[in-house]
Amino acid sequence: MRVRNRPGAAELVAAHPEYIPNEPKKLKGHWQERFKNSNLIQIEIGTGKGQFIVGMAKAHPEINYIGIEMQLSVVSLALDKLIAEELPNLQLLHVDGSDLTDYFAENEVDQIYLNFSDPWPKKKHEKRRLTFKTFLAIDEEILKPNGEIHFKTDNQGLFEYSLSSFSKYGMVIEQVWLDLHQSDYQGNIMTEYEEKFSNKGQPIYRVEARFISKARD
Amino acid sequence: MRVRNRPGAAELVAAHPEYIPNEPKKLKGHWQERFKNSNLIQIEIGTGKGQFIVGMAKAHPEINYIGIEMQLSVVSLALDKLIAEELPNLQLLHVDGSDLTDYFAENEVDQIYLNFSDPWPKKKHEKRRLTFKTFLAIDEEILKPNGEIHFKTDNQGLFEYSLSSFSKYGMVIEQVWLDLHQSDYQGNIMTEYEEKFSNKGQPIYRVEARFISKARD
Ligand SMILES: C[S@@+](CC[C@H](N)C(=O)[O-])C[C@H]1O[C@@H](n2cnc3c(N)ncnc32)[C@H](O)[C@@H]1O
Ligand SMILES: C[S@@+](CC[C@H](N)C(=O)[O-])C[C@H]1O[C@@H](n2cnc3c(N)ncnc32)[C@H](O)[C@@H]1O
Repeated sequence: MRVRNRPGAAELVAAHPEYIPNEPKKLKGHWQERFKNSNLIQIEIGTGKGQFIVGMAKAHPEINYIGIEMQLSVVSLALDKLIAEELPNLQLLHVDGSDLTDYFAENEVDQIYLNFSDPWPKKKHEKRRLTFKTFLAIDEEILKPNGEIHFKTDNQGLFEYSLSSFSKYGMVIEQVWLDLHQSDYQGNIMTEYEEKFSNKGQPIYRVEARFISKARD
Repeated sequence: MRVRNRPGAAELVAAHPEYIPNEPKKLKGHWQERFKNSNLIQIEIGTGKGQFIVGMAKAHPEINYIGIEMQLSVVSLALDKLIAEELPNLQLLHVDGSDLTDYFAENEVDQIYLNFSDPWPKKKHEKRRLTFKTFLAIDEEILKPNGEIHFKTDNQGLFEYSLSSFSKYGMVIEQVWLDLHQSDYQGNIMTEYEEKFSNKGQPIYRVEARFISKARD
Protein backbone atom coordinates (compact mmCIF):
# COMPACT_ATOMS: atom_id res chain seq x y z
CA MET A 1 0.00 0.00 0.00
CA ARG A 2 1.46 3.30 -1.09
CA VAL A 3 0.28 6.34 0.76
CA ARG A 4 1.75 9.78 0.85
CA ASN A 5 3.75 10.58 3.93
CA ARG A 6 1.23 11.98 6.40
CA PRO A 7 2.45 15.04 8.29
CA GLY A 8 1.84 14.64 12.00
CA ALA A 9 1.45 10.84 11.84
CA ALA A 10 4.23 10.23 14.37
CA GLU A 11 2.79 12.73 16.80
CA LEU A 12 -0.71 11.27 16.48
CA VAL A 13 0.56 7.76 17.17
CA ALA A 14 2.65 8.95 20.12
CA ALA A 15 -0.38 10.72 21.57
CA HIS A 16 -2.46 7.53 21.71
CA PRO A 17 -0.58 4.90 23.67
CA GLU A 18 -3.93 3.57 24.89
CA TYR A 19 -4.57 2.36 21.30
CA ILE A 20 -1.02 1.92 19.96
CA PRO A 21 1.20 0.77 22.82
CA ASN A 22 4.59 2.47 22.70
CA GLU A 23 6.47 -0.40 24.33
CA PRO A 24 4.80 -3.35 22.66
CA LYS A 25 7.51 -5.88 23.49
CA LYS A 26 6.54 -5.56 27.15
CA LEU A 27 3.08 -6.84 26.27
CA LYS A 28 4.34 -10.21 25.06
CA GLY A 29 2.46 -12.79 27.11
CA HIS A 30 0.33 -10.07 28.75
CA TRP A 31 -2.24 -9.17 26.13
CA GLN A 32 -5.21 -10.39 28.08
CA GLU A 33 -4.19 -8.16 31.00
CA ARG A 34 -3.97 -5.28 28.57
CA PHE A 35 -7.51 -6.00 27.33
CA LYS A 36 -8.64 -6.58 30.94
CA ASN A 37 -10.51 -9.76 30.05
CA SER A 38 -9.80 -13.33 29.05
CA ASN A 39 -11.38 -13.19 25.60
CA LEU A 40 -9.70 -14.72 22.58
CA ILE A 41 -7.12 -12.65 20.71
CA GLN A 42 -7.08 -12.45 16.93
CA ILE A 43 -4.57 -10.49 14.89
CA GLU A 44 -4.32 -9.11 11.38
CA ILE A 45 -0.92 -8.74 9.74
CA GLY A 46 -0.77 -5.84 7.28
CA THR A 47 -3.86 -4.05 8.51
CA GLY A 48 -3.59 -1.14 6.10
CA LYS A 49 -6.05 1.63 6.85
CA GLY A 50 -7.95 -0.56 9.27
CA GLN A 51 -11.37 -0.94 7.72
CA PHE A 52 -11.41 -4.72 8.22
CA ILE A 53 -10.11 -4.91 11.77
CA VAL A 54 -12.28 -2.00 12.95
CA GLY A 55 -15.30 -3.68 11.34
CA MET A 56 -14.44 -7.00 12.99
CA ALA A 57 -13.99 -5.38 16.40
CA LYS A 58 -17.38 -3.69 16.11
CA ALA A 59 -19.09 -6.88 14.91
CA HIS A 60 -17.51 -9.13 17.57
CA PRO A 61 -17.15 -7.29 20.88
CA GLU A 62 -16.48 -10.63 22.60
CA ILE A 63 -13.18 -11.04 20.72
CA ASN A 64 -10.02 -8.96 21.14
CA TYR A 65 -8.32 -7.77 17.96
CA ILE A 66 -4.87 -6.46 17.20
CA GLY A 67 -4.07 -4.85 13.86
CA ILE A 68 -0.41 -4.88 12.84
CA GLU A 69 0.85 -2.44 10.26
CA MET A 70 4.44 -1.40 9.68
CA GLN A 71 3.91 1.80 7.70
CA LEU A 72 3.53 4.79 9.98
CA SER A 73 1.31 6.90 7.75
CA VAL A 74 -0.92 3.90 7.06
CA VAL A 75 -1.32 2.82 10.68
CA SER A 76 -2.09 6.41 11.63
CA LEU A 77 -5.10 6.26 9.29
CA ALA A 78 -6.29 3.10 11.04
CA LEU A 79 -5.79 4.94 14.32
CA ASP A 80 -8.14 7.70 13.14
CA LYS A 81 -10.89 5.12 12.82
CA LEU A 82 -10.16 3.55 16.19
CA ILE A 83 -10.21 6.95 17.93
CA ALA A 84 -13.53 7.72 16.28
CA GLU A 85 -15.06 4.37 17.26
CA GLU A 86 -13.50 4.11 20.76
CA LEU A 87 -13.30 0.32 20.65
CA PRO A 88 -12.04 -1.30 23.86
CA ASN A 89 -11.40 -4.60 22.07
CA LEU A 90 -9.03 -3.28 19.40
CA GLN A 91 -5.35 -2.38 19.57
CA LEU A 92 -2.94 -1.41 16.84
CA LEU A 93 0.73 -2.24 16.55
CA HIS A 94 3.12 -0.19 14.50
CA VAL A 95 5.70 -2.94 14.05
CA ASP A 96 7.04 -5.34 11.43
CA GLY A 97 4.95 -8.50 11.33
CA SER A 98 8.12 -10.49 10.59
CA ASP A 99 9.04 -10.29 14.27
CA LEU A 100 5.80 -11.45 15.83
CA THR A 101 7.51 -13.59 18.45
CA ASP A 102 8.84 -10.37 19.99
CA TYR A 103 5.26 -9.31 20.72
CA PHE A 104 3.35 -12.52 21.33
CA ALA A 105 4.05 -15.51 23.52
CA GLU A 106 3.54 -19.10 22.41
CA ASN A 107 -0.16 -19.95 22.06
CA GLU A 108 -1.21 -16.37 22.86
CA VAL A 109 -3.10 -15.85 19.61
CA ASP A 110 -6.35 -17.55 18.62
CA GLN A 111 -6.42 -16.72 14.91
CA ILE A 112 -4.49 -14.79 12.25
CA TYR A 113 -5.94 -12.78 9.37
CA LEU A 114 -4.04 -11.95 6.22
CA ASN A 115 -5.88 -9.70 3.79
CA PHE A 116 -4.59 -8.71 0.36
CA SER A 117 -1.01 -9.22 1.42
CA ASP A 118 1.63 -7.86 -0.91
CA PRO A 119 1.90 -10.46 -3.71
CA TRP A 120 5.65 -10.28 -4.47
CA PRO A 121 5.06 -12.01 -7.79
CA LYS A 122 8.69 -12.57 -8.70
CA LYS A 123 10.01 -16.00 -7.74
CA LYS A 124 13.15 -14.40 -6.28
CA HIS A 125 10.91 -12.52 -3.80
CA GLU A 126 9.07 -15.63 -2.65
CA LYS A 127 10.62 -15.28 0.83
CA ARG A 128 8.86 -11.96 1.32
CA ARG A 129 5.37 -13.37 0.84
CA LEU A 130 3.54 -13.53 4.18
CA THR A 131 2.52 -17.10 3.35
CA PHE A 132 6.14 -18.26 2.85
CA LYS A 133 7.15 -21.04 5.21
CA THR A 134 9.32 -18.90 7.49
CA PHE A 135 6.31 -16.68 8.24
CA LEU A 136 4.13 -19.75 8.75
CA ALA A 137 6.62 -21.04 11.33
CA ILE A 138 6.33 -17.77 13.27
CA ASP A 139 2.55 -17.80 12.98
CA GLU A 140 2.47 -21.37 14.26
CA GLU A 141 4.56 -20.45 17.27
CA ILE A 142 2.28 -17.67 18.52
CA LEU A 143 -0.96 -19.44 17.58
CA LYS A 144 -2.69 -21.82 19.94
CA PRO A 145 -2.65 -25.49 18.85
CA ASN A 146 -4.85 -26.05 15.81
CA GLY A 147 -4.93 -22.31 15.22
CA GLU A 148 -6.02 -21.00 11.85
CA ILE A 149 -4.95 -18.47 9.26
CA HIS A 150 -7.79 -16.84 7.32
CA PHE A 151 -6.51 -15.35 4.11
CA LYS A 152 -8.28 -13.23 1.49
CA THR A 153 -6.84 -11.87 -1.73
CA ASP A 154 -7.70 -10.90 -5.28
CA ASN A 155 -4.27 -12.02 -6.47
CA GLN A 156 -4.49 -15.30 -8.36
CA GLY A 157 -0.78 -16.05 -8.28
CA LEU A 158 -0.43 -15.41 -4.57
CA PHE A 159 -3.53 -17.49 -3.84
CA GLU A 160 -2.31 -20.45 -5.90
CA TYR A 161 1.07 -20.19 -4.19
CA SER A 162 -0.40 -19.88 -0.71
CA LEU A 163 -2.64 -22.94 -1.00
CA SER A 164 0.34 -25.13 -1.74
CA SER A 165 2.60 -23.31 0.73
CA PHE A 166 0.09 -23.94 3.54
CA SER A 167 -0.31 -27.55 2.50
CA LYS A 168 3.39 -28.27 2.09
CA TYR A 169 3.98 -26.78 5.53
CA GLY A 170 1.62 -29.43 6.90
CA MET A 171 -1.43 -27.23 7.38
CA VAL A 172 -4.90 -28.46 6.51
CA ILE A 173 -6.92 -26.52 3.94
CA GLU A 174 -10.23 -26.41 5.80
CA GLN A 175 -12.25 -24.44 3.27
CA VAL A 176 -11.69 -22.55 0.03
CA TRP A 177 -13.75 -19.87 -1.70
CA LEU A 178 -12.89 -19.02 -5.30
CA ASP A 179 -15.47 -16.25 -5.54
CA LEU A 180 -16.27 -15.09 -2.03
CA HIS A 181 -18.77 -12.42 -2.96
CA GLN A 182 -20.86 -14.85 -5.01
CA SER A 183 -20.84 -17.47 -2.25
CA ASP A 184 -23.11 -17.99 0.73
CA TYR A 185 -20.37 -16.93 3.16
CA GLN A 186 -21.96 -14.87 5.93
CA GLY A 187 -20.59 -11.91 7.83
CA ASN A 188 -17.80 -10.93 5.46
CA ILE A 189 -16.17 -7.62 6.38
CA MET A 190 -14.54 -5.95 3.40
CA THR A 191 -11.07 -4.46 3.45
CA GLU A 192 -10.12 -1.35 1.49
CA TYR A 193 -8.41 -3.43 -1.19
CA GLU A 194 -11.33 -5.84 -1.32
CA GLU A 195 -13.73 -3.01 -2.13
CA LYS A 196 -11.41 -1.67 -4.76
CA PHE A 197 -10.80 -4.96 -6.55
CA SER A 198 -14.30 -6.34 -6.30
CA ASN A 199 -15.63 -3.07 -7.73
CA LYS A 200 -13.43 -3.82 -10.73
CA GLY A 201 -15.21 -7.16 -11.07
CA GLN A 202 -12.36 -9.36 -9.86
CA PRO A 203 -13.26 -12.45 -7.84
CA ILE A 204 -12.11 -12.49 -4.24
CA TYR A 205 -10.37 -15.67 -3.06
CA ARG A 206 -10.49 -16.86 0.53
CA VAL A 207 -9.04 -19.80 2.43
CA GLU A 208 -9.11 -21.04 6.01
CA ALA A 209 -6.03 -23.11 6.80
CA ARG A 210 -5.32 -24.84 10.09
CA PHE A 211 -2.09 -25.83 11.76
CA ILE A 212 -2.02 -29.40 12.96
CA SER A 213 -1.24 -29.99 16.59
CA LYS A 214 2.12 -31.48 17.19
CA ALA A 215 4.30 -31.97 20.20
CA ARG A 216 5.80 -28.61 21.10
CA ASP A 217 8.89 -27.91 23.15
CA MET B 1 -21.77 -37.39 -19.68
CA ARG B 2 -25.04 -38.14 -21.44
CA VAL B 3 -24.79 -39.88 -24.77
CA ARG B 4 -27.43 -41.66 -26.73
CA ASN B 5 -27.37 -45.42 -26.49
CA ARG B 6 -25.05 -46.51 -29.30
CA PRO B 7 -26.30 -49.50 -31.27
CA GLY B 8 -23.56 -52.09 -31.63
CA ALA B 9 -21.47 -50.73 -28.77
CA ALA B 10 -21.45 -54.04 -26.88
CA GLU B 11 -20.45 -55.95 -30.01
CA LEU B 12 -17.66 -53.50 -30.80
CA VAL B 13 -16.25 -53.75 -27.27
CA ALA B 14 -16.50 -57.55 -27.32
CA ALA B 15 -14.65 -57.64 -30.63
CA HIS B 16 -11.60 -55.83 -29.24
CA PRO B 17 -10.31 -57.67 -26.19
CA GLU B 18 -6.80 -56.56 -27.15
CA TYR B 19 -7.81 -52.98 -26.19
CA ILE B 20 -10.63 -53.60 -23.68
CA PRO B 21 -9.80 -56.75 -21.74
CA ASN B 22 -12.88 -58.88 -21.16
CA GLU B 23 -11.66 -60.42 -17.90
CA PRO B 24 -10.05 -57.35 -16.30
CA LYS B 25 -10.01 -58.75 -12.75
CA LYS B 26 -7.46 -61.30 -13.91
CA LEU B 27 -5.10 -58.47 -14.77
CA LYS B 28 -4.87 -57.22 -11.18
CA GLY B 29 -1.16 -57.19 -10.38
CA HIS B 30 -0.28 -58.18 -13.96
CA TRP B 31 -0.63 -54.98 -15.94
CA GLN B 32 3.05 -54.69 -16.82
CA GLU B 33 2.93 -58.20 -18.31
CA ARG B 34 -0.09 -57.12 -20.30
CA PHE B 35 1.81 -54.10 -21.64
CA LYS B 36 4.90 -56.29 -22.16
CA ASN B 37 7.21 -53.75 -20.55
CA SER B 38 8.03 -52.31 -17.14
CA ASN B 39 6.98 -48.74 -17.84
CA LEU B 40 4.95 -46.74 -15.35
CA ILE B 41 1.17 -47.12 -15.39
CA GLN B 42 -1.14 -44.12 -15.18
CA ILE B 43 -4.92 -44.30 -15.15
CA GLU B 44 -7.80 -41.95 -15.80
CA ILE B 45 -11.10 -42.48 -14.00
CA GLY B 46 -14.10 -41.34 -16.03
CA THR B 47 -12.35 -41.23 -19.39
CA GLY B 48 -15.40 -40.19 -21.37
CA LYS B 49 -14.84 -40.30 -25.12
CA GLY B 50 -11.12 -40.69 -24.63
CA GLN B 51 -9.63 -37.56 -26.18
CA PHE B 52 -7.36 -36.92 -23.16
CA ILE B 53 -6.06 -40.43 -22.60
CA VAL B 54 -5.50 -41.05 -26.31
CA GLY B 55 -3.63 -37.73 -26.53
CA MET B 56 -1.52 -38.60 -23.49
CA ALA B 57 -0.68 -42.05 -24.86
CA LYS B 58 0.43 -40.52 -28.16
CA ALA B 59 2.47 -37.80 -26.44
CA HIS B 60 4.15 -40.16 -23.94
CA PRO B 61 4.89 -43.54 -25.54
CA GLU B 62 7.17 -44.37 -22.58
CA ILE B 63 4.19 -44.45 -20.19
CA ASN B 64 1.37 -46.97 -20.10
CA TYR B 65 -2.16 -45.60 -19.79
CA ILE B 66 -5.46 -47.12 -18.81
CA GLY B 67 -8.72 -45.24 -19.35
CA ILE B 68 -11.62 -46.32 -17.13
CA GLU B 69 -15.18 -45.54 -18.18
CA MET B 70 -18.30 -47.18 -16.89
CA GLN B 71 -20.76 -46.18 -19.62
CA LEU B 72 -20.74 -48.66 -22.47
CA SER B 73 -21.69 -46.27 -25.26
CA VAL B 74 -19.14 -43.73 -24.05
CA VAL B 75 -16.25 -46.17 -23.72
CA SER B 76 -17.07 -47.51 -27.17
CA LEU B 77 -16.41 -44.02 -28.57
CA ALA B 78 -13.03 -43.98 -26.84
CA LEU B 79 -12.41 -47.40 -28.35
CA ASP B 80 -13.02 -45.98 -31.83
CA LYS B 81 -10.13 -43.59 -31.28
CA LEU B 82 -7.84 -46.29 -29.90
CA ILE B 83 -8.56 -48.58 -32.86
CA ALA B 84 -7.78 -45.73 -35.24
CA GLU B 85 -4.53 -44.85 -33.47
CA GLU B 86 -3.37 -48.42 -32.70
CA LEU B 87 -1.61 -47.40 -29.50
CA PRO B 88 0.27 -50.22 -27.75
CA ASN B 89 0.52 -48.19 -24.51
CA LEU B 90 -3.20 -47.61 -23.98
CA GLN B 91 -5.89 -49.90 -22.62
CA LEU B 92 -9.51 -49.18 -21.79
CA LEU B 93 -11.56 -50.64 -18.99
CA HIS B 94 -15.33 -50.75 -19.08
CA VAL B 95 -15.81 -50.97 -15.31
CA ASP B 96 -16.93 -48.89 -12.36
CA GLY B 97 -14.03 -46.86 -10.97
CA SER B 98 -15.45 -47.36 -7.45
CA ASP B 99 -14.02 -50.88 -7.45
CA LEU B 100 -10.46 -50.14 -8.49
CA THR B 101 -8.95 -52.57 -6.01
CA ASP B 102 -10.56 -55.37 -8.02
CA TYR B 103 -8.41 -54.43 -11.01
CA PHE B 104 -5.19 -53.06 -9.56
CA ALA B 105 -2.83 -54.38 -6.90
CA GLU B 106 -1.30 -52.23 -4.17
CA ASN B 107 1.29 -49.81 -5.57
CA GLU B 108 0.57 -50.90 -9.15
CA VAL B 109 -0.38 -47.42 -10.37
CA ASP B 110 2.00 -44.47 -10.76
CA GLN B 111 -0.53 -41.66 -11.16
CA ILE B 112 -4.28 -41.03 -11.37
CA TYR B 113 -6.04 -38.49 -13.58
CA LEU B 114 -9.49 -37.14 -12.86
CA ASN B 115 -10.88 -34.83 -15.52
CA PHE B 116 -14.17 -32.98 -15.29
CA SER B 117 -15.57 -35.54 -12.91
CA ASP B 118 -19.30 -35.36 -12.28
CA PRO B 119 -19.74 -32.53 -9.75
CA TRP B 120 -22.64 -33.91 -7.67
CA PRO B 121 -23.30 -30.41 -6.29
CA LYS B 122 -25.84 -31.40 -3.65
CA LYS B 123 -24.37 -31.92 -0.20
CA LYS B 124 -26.34 -35.15 0.16
CA HIS B 125 -24.46 -36.53 -2.87
CA GLU B 126 -21.01 -35.67 -1.50
CA LYS B 127 -20.19 -39.38 -1.21
CA ARG B 128 -20.51 -39.78 -4.97
CA ARG B 129 -17.82 -37.22 -5.81
CA LEU B 130 -14.66 -38.95 -7.04
CA THR B 131 -12.66 -36.77 -4.64
CA PHE B 132 -14.64 -37.90 -1.56
CA LYS B 133 -12.49 -39.58 1.05
CA THR B 134 -13.68 -43.13 0.35
CA PHE B 135 -12.46 -42.81 -3.26
CA LEU B 136 -9.20 -41.28 -2.05
CA ALA B 137 -8.65 -44.28 0.20
CA ILE B 138 -9.03 -46.60 -2.81
CA ASP B 139 -6.76 -44.41 -4.92
CA GLU B 140 -4.14 -44.44 -2.19
CA GLU B 141 -4.22 -48.20 -2.02
CA ILE B 142 -3.49 -48.80 -5.69
CA LEU B 143 -1.04 -45.89 -6.03
CA LYS B 144 2.64 -46.26 -5.31
CA PRO B 145 3.89 -44.41 -2.20
CA ASN B 146 3.83 -40.63 -2.74
CA GLY B 147 1.60 -41.15 -5.77
CA GLU B 148 -0.33 -38.21 -7.14
CA ILE B 149 -3.80 -37.36 -8.36
CA HIS B 150 -3.95 -34.76 -11.14
CA PHE B 151 -7.39 -33.22 -11.34
CA LYS B 152 -8.86 -30.75 -13.83
CA THR B 153 -12.33 -29.25 -13.81
CA ASP B 154 -14.33 -26.18 -14.76
CA ASN B 155 -16.60 -26.68 -11.77
CA GLN B 156 -15.86 -24.13 -9.05
CA GLY B 157 -17.79 -25.90 -6.31
CA LEU B 158 -16.21 -29.27 -6.99
CA PHE B 159 -12.75 -27.71 -7.15
CA GLU B 160 -13.18 -25.85 -3.84
CA TYR B 161 -14.47 -29.05 -2.28
CA SER B 162 -11.70 -31.21 -3.70
CA LEU B 163 -8.86 -28.98 -2.46
CA SER B 164 -10.06 -29.32 1.10
CA SER B 165 -11.01 -32.98 0.69
CA PHE B 166 -7.48 -33.81 -0.50
CA SER B 167 -5.95 -31.76 2.31
CA LYS B 168 -8.18 -33.16 5.05
CA TYR B 169 -7.34 -36.65 3.87
CA GLY B 170 -3.71 -35.82 4.54
CA MET B 171 -2.60 -35.25 0.96
CA VAL B 172 -0.27 -32.43 0.04
CA ILE B 173 -1.46 -29.83 -2.47
CA GLU B 174 1.66 -29.66 -4.64
CA GLN B 175 0.46 -27.10 -7.16
CA VAL B 176 -2.73 -25.28 -8.07
CA TRP B 177 -3.82 -23.55 -11.30
CA LEU B 178 -6.86 -21.29 -11.15
CA ASP B 179 -6.79 -20.51 -14.87
CA LEU B 180 -4.85 -23.26 -16.59
CA HIS B 181 -5.18 -21.94 -20.12
CA GLN B 182 -3.77 -18.53 -19.12
CA SER B 183 -0.86 -20.09 -17.24
CA ASP B 184 2.57 -21.19 -18.40
CA TYR B 185 1.69 -24.87 -17.91
CA GLN B 186 3.23 -26.84 -20.77
CA GLY B 187 1.92 -29.89 -22.56
CA ASN B 188 -1.72 -29.69 -21.55
CA ILE B 189 -3.92 -32.17 -23.37
CA MET B 190 -7.52 -31.05 -23.52
CA THR B 191 -10.46 -33.29 -22.74
CA GLU B 192 -13.80 -33.03 -24.55
CA TYR B 193 -15.34 -31.17 -21.61
CA GLU B 194 -12.33 -28.90 -21.32
CA GLU B 195 -12.74 -27.77 -24.94
CA LYS B 196 -16.42 -27.19 -24.45
CA PHE B 197 -16.14 -25.14 -21.26
CA SER B 198 -13.05 -23.17 -22.18
CA ASN B 199 -14.74 -22.21 -25.47
CA LYS B 200 -17.48 -20.71 -23.30
CA GLY B 201 -14.81 -18.61 -21.59
CA GLN B 202 -14.79 -20.47 -18.26
CA PRO B 203 -11.46 -20.81 -16.46
CA ILE B 204 -10.11 -24.33 -16.10
CA TYR B 205 -8.90 -25.31 -12.63
CA ARG B 206 -6.14 -27.85 -12.06
CA VAL B 207 -4.45 -29.34 -9.01
CA GLU B 208 -1.71 -31.86 -8.37
CA ALA B 209 -2.13 -33.52 -4.98
CA ARG B 210 0.19 -36.10 -3.47
CA PHE B 211 -0.39 -38.86 -0.97
CA ILE B 212 2.09 -38.89 1.87
CA SER B 213 3.98 -42.08 2.48
CA LYS B 214 2.94 -43.85 5.58
CA ALA B 215 3.49 -47.28 6.97
CA ARG B 216 1.30 -49.67 5.03
CA ASP B 217 0.09 -53.08 6.10
C1 LIG C 1 -1.64 -4.47 -0.07
S1 LIG C 1 -1.84 -3.71 1.50
C2 LIG C 1 -3.42 -4.37 2.06
C3 LIG C 1 -3.99 -3.61 3.20
C4 LIG C 1 -5.30 -4.13 3.80
N1 LIG C 1 -5.07 -5.43 4.45
C5 LIG C 1 -6.40 -4.25 2.77
O1 LIG C 1 -6.77 -5.39 2.44
O2 LIG C 1 -6.91 -3.24 2.33
C6 LIG C 1 -0.65 -4.59 2.48
C7 LIG C 1 -0.29 -3.89 3.77
O3 LIG C 1 0.50 -4.77 4.54
C8 LIG C 1 1.53 -4.03 5.17
N2 LIG C 1 2.61 -4.98 5.46
C9 LIG C 1 3.33 -5.68 4.57
N3 LIG C 1 4.22 -6.45 5.19
C10 LIG C 1 4.08 -6.21 6.52
C11 LIG C 1 4.76 -6.68 7.67
N4 LIG C 1 5.77 -7.55 7.57
N5 LIG C 1 4.37 -6.23 8.88
C12 LIG C 1 3.35 -5.34 8.96
N6 LIG C 1 2.69 -4.84 7.90
C13 LIG C 1 3.06 -5.27 6.70
C14 LIG C 1 1.87 -2.97 4.15
O4 LIG C 1 2.50 -1.86 4.78
C15 LIG C 1 0.51 -2.62 3.56
O5 LIG C 1 -0.11 -1.57 4.27
C1 LIG D 1 -18.46 -35.31 -16.99
S1 LIG D 1 -17.81 -36.64 -17.86
C2 LIG D 1 -16.16 -36.13 -18.28
C3 LIG D 1 -15.54 -36.96 -19.34
C4 LIG D 1 -14.07 -36.63 -19.69
N1 LIG D 1 -13.18 -36.92 -18.56
C5 LIG D 1 -13.90 -35.19 -20.14
O1 LIG D 1 -13.27 -34.41 -19.39
O2 LIG D 1 -14.36 -34.83 -21.24
C6 LIG D 1 -17.55 -37.81 -16.55
C7 LIG D 1 -17.41 -39.25 -17.05
O3 LIG D 1 -17.02 -40.06 -15.94
C8 LIG D 1 -17.71 -41.30 -16.02
N2 LIG D 1 -17.73 -41.83 -14.65
C9 LIG D 1 -18.32 -41.28 -13.58
N3 LIG D 1 -18.15 -42.05 -12.50
C10 LIG D 1 -17.41 -43.12 -12.89
C11 LIG D 1 -16.93 -44.27 -12.22
N4 LIG D 1 -17.19 -44.48 -10.92
N5 LIG D 1 -16.22 -45.15 -12.95
C12 LIG D 1 -15.99 -44.96 -14.26
N6 LIG D 1 -16.43 -43.89 -14.94
C13 LIG D 1 -17.15 -42.99 -14.27
C14 LIG D 1 -19.04 -40.94 -16.58
O4 LIG D 1 -19.65 -42.06 -17.17
C15 LIG D 1 -18.70 -39.85 -17.60
O5 LIG D 1 -18.42 -40.40 -18.88
